[in-house]
Amino acid sequence: MLFTVVSRSLAALCNHGFEKKAEYSSHEFERPTYRKHMLYATIGVGVSVATLFGIKNKVQAKSVAKDASQPQKLIGGEFRKDLPVYRATDVAKRDSKENRIWVSYKRGVYDVTDFVAKHPGGEKILMAAGGATEPFWGLYAVHFAPRVMELMEQYRIGNLHEDDVIETPSEEDGPYGQEPVRNKILVARSSKPCNAETPPELLIQDFITPNDVFYVRNHLPVPQVDPLYYELEVTGIGIKDKSFTLDELKKFPKHKLVMTIMCAGNRRSEMNKVREVKGLEWALGAVGTAEWAGVRLQDLLESLGFDPKTNKAAHIQFEGLDLDPASSPYGASVPIRTALISDVILAYEMNGEPIPRDHGYPIRACVPGVVGARNVKWLGKIVLSHEESQSHWQQRDYKGFSPTVDFEHADWKSSPAIQDLPVTSAICNLKEGDVVQPVNGKVTVKGYAWSGGGRKIARVDITCDKGKTWHVARHDPGDKSGQNVGWAWTLWTAEIPVSQSGTVEIWAKAVDDSYNTQPETFENIWNIRGVLSNAYHKVKVHVQ
Amino acid sequence: MLFTVVSRSLAALCNHGFEKKAEYSSHEFERPTYRKHMLYATIGVGVSVATLFGIKNKVQAKSVAKDASQPQKLIGGEFRKDLPVYRATDVAKRDSKENRIWVSYKRGVYDVTDFVAKHPGGEKILMAAGGATEPFWGLYAVHFAPRVMELMEQYRIGNLHEDDVIETPSEEDGPYGQEPVRNKILVARSSKPCNAETPPELLIQDFITPNDVFYVRNHLPVPQVDPLYYELEVTGIGIKDKSFTLDELKKFPKHKLVMTIMCAGNRRSEMNKVREVKGLEWALGAVGTAEWAGVRLQDLLESLGFDPKTNKAAHIQFEGLDLDPASSPYGASVPIRTALISDVILAYEMNGEPIPRDHGYPIRACVPGVVGARNVKWLGKIVLSHEESQSHWQQRDYKGFSPTVDFEHADWKSSPAIQDLPVTSAICNLKEGDVVQPVNGKVTVKGYAWSGGGRKIARVDITCDKGKTWHVARHDPGDKSGQNVGWAWTLWTAEIPVSQSGTVEIWAKAVDDSYNTQPETFENIWNIRGVLSNAYHKVKVHVQ
Repeated sequence: MLFTVVSRSLAALCNHGFEKKAEYSSHEFERPTYRKHMLYATIGVGVSVATLFGIKNKVQAKSVAKDASQPQKLIGGEFRKDLPVYRATDVAKRDSKENRIWVSYKRGVYDVTDFVAKHPGGEKILMAAGGATEPFWGLYAVHFAPRVMELMEQYRIGNLHEDDVIETPSEEDGPYGQEPVRNKILVARSSKPCNAETPPELLIQDFITPNDVFYVRNHLPVPQVDPLYYELEVTGIGIKDKSFTLDELKKFPKHKLVMTIMCAGNRRSEMNKVREVKGLEWALGAVGTAEWAGVRLQDLLESLGFDPKTNKAAHIQFEGLDLDPASSPYGASVPIRTALISDVILAYEMNGEPIPRDHGYPIRACVPGVVGARNVKWLGKIVLSHEESQSHWQQRDYKGFSPTVDFEHADWKSSPAIQDLPVTSAICNLKEGDVVQPVNGKVTVKGYAWSGGGRKIARVDITCDKGKTWHVARHDPGDKSGQNVGWAWTLWTAEIPVSQSGTVEIWAKAVDDSYNTQPETFENIWNIRGVLSNAYHKVKVHVQ
Repeated sequence: MLFTVVSRSLAALCNHGFEKKAEYSSHEFERPTYRKHMLYATIGVGVSVATLFGIKNKVQAKSVAKDASQPQKLIGGEFRKDLPVYRATDVAKRDSKENRIWVSYKRGVYDVTDFVAKHPGGEKILMAAGGATEPFWGLYAVHFAPRVMELMEQYRIGNLHEDDVIETPSEEDGPYGQEPVRNKILVARSSKPCNAETPPELLIQDFITPNDVFYVRNHLPVPQVDPLYYELEVTGIGIKDKSFTLDELKKFPKHKLVMTIMCAGNRRSEMNKVREVKGLEWALGAVGTAEWAGVRLQDLLESLGFDPKTNKAAHIQFEGLDLDPASSPYGASVPIRTALISDVILAYEMNGEPIPRDHGYPIRACVPGVVGARNVKWLGKIVLSHEESQSHWQQRDYKGFSPTVDFEHADWKSSPAIQDLPVTSAICNLKEGDVVQPVNGKVTVKGYAWSGGGRKIARVDITCDKGKTWHVARHDPGDKSGQNVGWAWTLWTAEIPVSQSGTVEIWAKAVDDSYNTQPETFENIWNIRGVLSNAYHKVKVHVQ
């Protein structure tokens, strides 16, 4: 109870952070007195980390096997004799586009006004306006990279006074000090927040992906939620407001849902080879399938008087309990038409176990057919609204653009928020450069295929002669279980005759039951964020 | 009343024709005594044409302007001295695969057993087994073509006795003698049945396509239905059976729906250029948008006790009042999930007028987002069922296949029936070879884009340098009317800068809000029936 009350108060005070930025920045105590607790409660309502995150988990987070974004030895933010010295109070005055936007990092002071439009994270950069970047970079550790430091130096205008340089919290006490333990087999794409994918060979081992190897896509530190104090607030147009405890949610009929979740950035690394994009370097493992179980959203809403025939809400907004440095929760929404599909559940189980912390403990929204980003984890609030979620992730991220549009010219309002994902497929048993020994003149190719919106996979076609001959793959067991209506992927196998030895390029393309198919190449679907990267999967192998 | 009773009895007797073929063929009176009325009632229940088709329309059908399938002077079916003579009774014995399948045409007798698997119309050919092809070809006039005659001659085994050659009905008394008057501006692709498309420049003239230039796609002769005697039979799982008169249907609340309908074969002619396909040579005008009005299917079903939460039906089958030579109605079905979208209507108006005869008078099923073939015209019956429609058009037509699959190897059960169509677009103001004069260095490009399943068009991208630079088209007024949720097309305009004179290839590609996009070329989506022909639309023009 306390937890929910506190987090809701924070959210209410911040009102999603960005609009109220001026107000937030005007708190004098926030900048020079910044200390580690402020990472969690920068608006100074006196909430301790322990209270906010519930009971502390004693198990320390282990870092996953390969970690592409571990802080490297950085050169950056050093004192430069050729530049003037500023105090933190000087920097604090430069917190809006009108007055210029300054930030500091270690001893460096930077004028980033002209960089705002180019920032891959969009206007989130404004949270740091007039102050130090360290606390934010503590949350988005991707910044601790030599290329970021080089870029920053282009905007360098001065030195910060040595008395004003902020103290960096130790790893254990920092926002990522309480992450869950993770399976080392996951392939890390960033550690803070944790983003890690399933190796291809594990994806096709079974129709259901085990919890501990299921890909992790976090935007912020994993909140620690005490189930005893957990509450889900439900509010908005045409329903009675109510907060549900976990026990109350579990009293509704339990509904199972076999559902695939995929990140909008899955297979981004392939698009990145055509031309550089901004985002995590996902290979093809930011996808997985689980049996989720929980309360039907429909049942929950009907218990509050919801009537689908008269209700005027156009969107259902979900808010997570994971908070950014301004205490704004992660947020997303789905159109009401999607939300009312009877299979949408608020899940408390994943493959028969309580949902693991990395996947949304204690409650995750499961909206089948819809991109991972809208399947909000650590669900704290549901709002029926006329509007989409106004969160950064709904409005200025997870959208597609024309290949010619760059960050500076992207009109975010012009593109729809990604909901249903387009059809895709991937070869999982062979990787670029593999040496393959045919059996009876045939090479076995295995992989997955999936499409959003409940569209079943109609067919997977494989070619190893650039489309002259196509072979139809057979569907592996699992997808015909009748447990889903196209919400889950299709695993497939094809035996392809190869007549010659040497280099062979194998292509996979899926067709869904709306007969949409994958585009042939990445060039014509390229987009700044590297999302929706669903061109044919092509793997070159050497046949012996 | 009489009309419905009669047509239902016929349907019941025939039970979709194919399964009961043996029984049907055993009627002795049907073959040698075949005369023109038998085109309508081949099973001899003594129903006259006038009764079956209600009051005769006195207006004679005018043929549309260009007619690609008008009977040409044919060479075929002549007496051949080198072959034996058979009586009709000999031919009649050869009516199954076990006994061989013989048919006659004029003086020719043919053994088509080995052709059945290759027949583009599938097992419909079996309707003629053991008898004359003329009555069936009278319905499917596409057969009256020199290439068909040449093909037939390969299967020639004998001559029919001259006394047994059947009389061909005159045009006026034939099955197509009572077709509606049509606008000559429509471009005909076949005349019997009538298939004619809208010229491209008319498609983009207005968001709404006028009734008289709306494309016509008929599978059989247009039935003449007397509104006084019309009844719609509704039956099946979990509902009370009932037949509704037109007046009874009109007593339900009237619901309007702005909806685009597209033929699965639209743009087939482009795919046909890559490799020959079977089907009508549609250019890009087998599509149109109208405001339909009628009864909500949901309201109708609820009046019969339908409960969406408990009903076990998986499909809703629609049957037309247009009958094939075996008196089987045209039929199709949609999944129950699609049928229960609240916008599905049984329309009696098209653009504010009673639906014209060519478009389904008096009632047409309007299932938004779904291929034209399932929007059954002249609706006579609705059945809630566990099964899909077993009609030829649902089971052995309107399906997609892998590019390598030919007619002989097509496993029709393996492919899903086309429902939602994939995203497509077309350039309508410019055609191949046009000479274009840029204005202020820009060429104006206009067209349409549409996607099935209610997926709105997110973006239309145009390039005239093969994808090096893409230009985002603006959406023309109309699609933001709020009158539809993605059920209707988007008309668009782009002004493309061209720096050089000479030949320029313009490409259009659309992206829908599931971010599916068009495939780049036809090669990799080629299929035997030439359906789902949605690759980039490419037009070469000469810039001055």
